[in-house]
Formats: sequence, C-alpha cells, structure tokens
Amino acid sequence: MRTKLEIRKIVTSDWFKFLQNQICEEFEQIEKGKSRSKKSKTFKKTSWKKSKNPMDGGGTYAILKNGAVFDSVGVNFSEVSGRFHKKFRSQIFGARENPNYWASGISVVAHMKNPKIPAMHFNTRFIVTSKNWFGGGMDATPTIKDLKEKKLFHKKIKITCDKYSKKYYPKYKKWCDEYFYLPHRRETRGIGGIFFDYKKNNWEKDFSFVRDVGLCFLDCAKTIITKKMNSKWSKKQKNQQFYKRGRYVEFNLLYDRGTKFGLNTGGNVNAILMSLPPAAKWK
Amino acid sequence: MRTKLEIRKIVTSDWFKFLQNQICEEFEQIEKGKSRSKKSKTFKKTSWKKSKNPMDGGGTYAILKNGAVFDSVGVNFSEVSGRFHKKFRSQIFGARENPNYWASGISVVAHMKNPKIPAMHFNTRFIVTSKNWFGGGMDATPTIKDLKEKKLFHKKIKITCDKYSKKYYPKYKKWCDEYFYLPHRRETRGIGGIFFDYKKNNWEKDFSFVRDVGLCFLDCAKTIITKKMNSKWSKKQKNQQFYKRGRYVEFNLLYDRGTKFGLNTGGNVNAILMSLPPAAKWK
Repeated sequence: MRTKLEIRKIVTSDWFKFLQNQICEEFEQIEKGKSRSKKSKTFKKTSWKKSKNPMDGGGTYAILKNGAVFDSVGVNFSEVSGRFHKKFRSQIFGARENPNYWASGISVVAHMKNPKIPAMHFNTRFIVTSKNWFGGGMDATPTIKDLKEKKLFHKKIKITCDKYSKKYYPKYKKWCDEYFYLPHRRETRGIGGIFFDYKKNNWEKDFSFVRDVGLCFLDCAKTIITKKMNSKWSKKQKNQQFYKRGRYVEFNLLYDRGTKFGLNTGGNVNAILMSLPPAAKWK
Repeated sequence: MRTKLEIRKIVTSDWFKFLQNQICEEFEQIEKGKSRSKKSKTFKKTSWKKSKNPMDGGGTYAILKNGAVFDSVGVNFSEVSGRFHKKFRSQIFGARENPNYWASGISVVAHMKNPKIPAMHFNTRFIVTSKNWFGGGMDATPTIKDLKEKKLFHKKIKITCDKYSKKYYPKYKKWCDEYFYLPHRRETRGIGGIFFDYKKNNWEKDFSFVRDVGLCFLDCAKTIITKKMNSKWSKKQKNQQFYKRGRYVEFNLLYDRGTKFGLNTGGNVNAILMSLPPAAKWK
C-alpha cells in the first residue's frame, strides 16, 4: 500500500504536469490570435532523464521561440530524486537528517516581443526531504513602468492569497521584494509579486493554495498580455528591453537559488537556463 | 621610513597604472588605423572611490565602445584597501590571521566587432593580507576555431614563461584550462592561455614575470587583432559570436572569482561588469 506521502507526491506531480499542458495550450492560443501567418508558433517539448536510473526522474521542458507575442517562453515540468551532496546538506531544509530528496515542480519564464509587456515568471514546487513543503511564487519585470498594470497584477494575486489567509499577501509580497533584488545594482528585478517557501502547515490547504497560485498566474499573464499585445513600440523601447534583460541575466546567474539548485544537482541545463532571455545587452 | 612592503605596493600599483595607459594608447592606435571616419573612438576614463575614506582607495576604468575594431573594451586599474567580512576570511589566503587587505591590479576584457577575432582577457594583481602574492593570467575566447592563431597565442605565452622557468607554462596553462571551465556545459570558455595565483617565491622575479605577462598580452592582442581586423565576416558568424558571448556571460556571473570578489567587497559595479559583452544571445 502507498503511504500518504507517496500519494501526495503523485498528486502534486500530476497537477504540475496538467498545469504545464494548460499553460502551453493557452499561450499557443494567444500566439494564434496574434500571428498573421496561417501557421502560428507552437511549443516544442523535450523530455529528459536525470540518469540511466529511472528512479532519478527527469522532466519535460516546453519552449516556444520567435513567436508573434513571445520572444521566448519556457514552461518546465520536472520530477527528480536523488541524494544531496555533502556540501549542500546543511543548506537544505531537512537534509541534514537524511540526504535523500524528491522534488517536483513547474516553472515558467516568458520574455515578450513587445517591450511594453513585462517579462513574467512563475514557479511552484513540492519538495520532500525528511520534511516536506511547498514553495513558489510569481513576479513581473516590466521594461516600461505602468502603474495601472502593477496594481492589477498585485490585486489579482492578493485576491488569491486572501482566500486562504489575510496574512499571506503582505508576507509573500515582502519575501518576493527581498528575493528578487540585485544588491550590486541596488535595484529590484521588477515590480515584485509573491514568493513563498517552506510552506507546510496544512497539506490539503497548502496544495489548494499552490493550485490557485498557478491558475492566478495564468489569469494574470493572459490579462496583461492580451491588453497590450496589439500595441506598437519604438526601436528605443525595444533597446531598453534588451538592457533590462541584461539585469535579468545578472539576477538569474548571480543570485537565483533555483538556478544554482538545478545546476548543482545535475538538472537539465537547457531546462534550467530557459529562464535566460533570447538576447540581452549591457551598457 | 617606508617598509619594503609599502614600497612594493607603490611600485606594483604604478606599474599597473602605467600598463593601463600603455594598453589604452595602443588600442586607440589600432582603432585609428581601422576607422574610416576622421574621428576614431577613444577611451572614456572614469575614476571612482570605494568610500569617503581616501584610505579605502578606488580606481580608474577606461572603456571604449562601438569602435571600428572593438565592440567594447575595458581596461581597469584599481587599488583598494579594506577589511574582509567575517564570512570571506576563511576563503582568502592569509586573511584568517588578519582580515585587512590591500590589492592593486589591472584587468582587460576586449569584445571584438569582427567575430573572427577572439575575445581577449588579461589580468595581473598584487594582493596583500598577512601574506602577499601576485596573481593573473590571460586567455582568449574565439567564436570561430583557428588552430594557427591558437598556436601563435600559446607560443608567445610560452616564450614569456620560459624566460623564468620551464615549469611555468605547463603549470599555468593547466590552471587556466581548469579555471575557465563551465561545468554545466562541460565546455572550456575558450582556447585557454595561462592563469596563476598565490605567486610568492622571489618578489623581484615574480614582479618581473608579472610585468612581462602584461607586455606579452599587449603583443598577443596587437598581433592577433591586426592580422584579422580587415577581414570580412558574415551575418551568421556575427550571430555565432552572440551565442558564444552568452557562454562568456554565464562563466563570468556563475563562476568568476574576480567578479564575486569585486561585488562582495563593494567594488565599482561598472568597472567589475565591464567584462560582460555589449550584447549576448541564448538559443
């Protein structure tokens, strides 16, 4: 018989997989709506295995490039197991007692063609060591300030959070601002959003929250994108976007824990670095 | 009266400053030789201070952008003092005993317009903690393989090394290959060169070697650049260069110790990140 925890692994992993397909489908619809050519761009899916041992798991990353709306968007699903290397054990919650881990998650990074639409990032994950917990969040990185858009984004997130607890939004918003920060630039990466980790109060409630965060992201992305996808932009604005993406690259390679975790635990490089923009500039 | 070590600090720092000017002048001559317009691009120099306390030092970075030969080239001089933060002390040679440090150095990174000419990097430094030592090296990162060029580059370096010891070149070449390596890509950054650190045998000899390494870099750069600066390139080759630069960015932000050292010790961000290319792409 399966333990409760084993069932929870299957159920969360299934949800992340379902959400990946859902996001890919809806983003393809957006591309279809915008593309002038009869054949609009679709996601290319690649599956990978962590090792020859099927128990180590792997994932599927879906990437759409050079679209009419998306310059590049990656939607990653993964489910991996392994043992933490000695030097990481002390850094990972619950890994000191037992170095074995299981982790499943979905992550999305969308870099837009139109510099008026912010880059958008979303991730949720379920991690099992000797402890087990959820983590995740979403945030947006505009090139050009848009106060109305920022308000809308945060409002949608707040509504989702408030369904569970009035404490979630302020707490996770602050965490997000602190996490997506470039100390060497004294700049935030973007306009924030929410970030949460080590979430392990009530599993059913937590999982429901994680599902809602995923649906909220899809809603935010669709609303924000479709509002602006037909607006024109200048060459200067596109150039500004390339410089903003330079900062995005700096954050992801210098500070992002997910990137480091992935590269350190033998994850798939193309899947991990799909967060990088197709092109970036530095002044 | 000044101690021997204080005199050594002044002498090395003066050399790095002199070499910075020399490199800038000679690179400007190369630009002048290539530029069709009457007014060729020159270096823009910016001086910065680490803090309000003049004892903390600072530096001068010289940058030339959008040249006829160089897409961007930075020639950095710095001389800084401070105290290592507790969490770095165990990582720095001689800092456990005494957290105070003094460091002076020159670093050069050149990203070329012509994708047939490799990106070139050079650095030498003198560092004083409770120990004092030289470090440095140079390496090249071509987009398009050129075995003859690789041989020439390594030959020139070997001749310089052999003047001091037959052991230097093989040892420092190996160190360079190990250092400029991207484990997540299982790729070297480029075609190598030399890398050395903790050099503290015979100060006079070491300093002479460090000076010769600087002059050898200038010779290599001039020879390699002038050989190819008038050759044409295709759009495809330029695009290849952008992808190669993506890897350069990955190395510098994920692994480079100099970048981490600079950002962690409150160095000037523009001076540190002048190593990044003006534009990079990811597939």
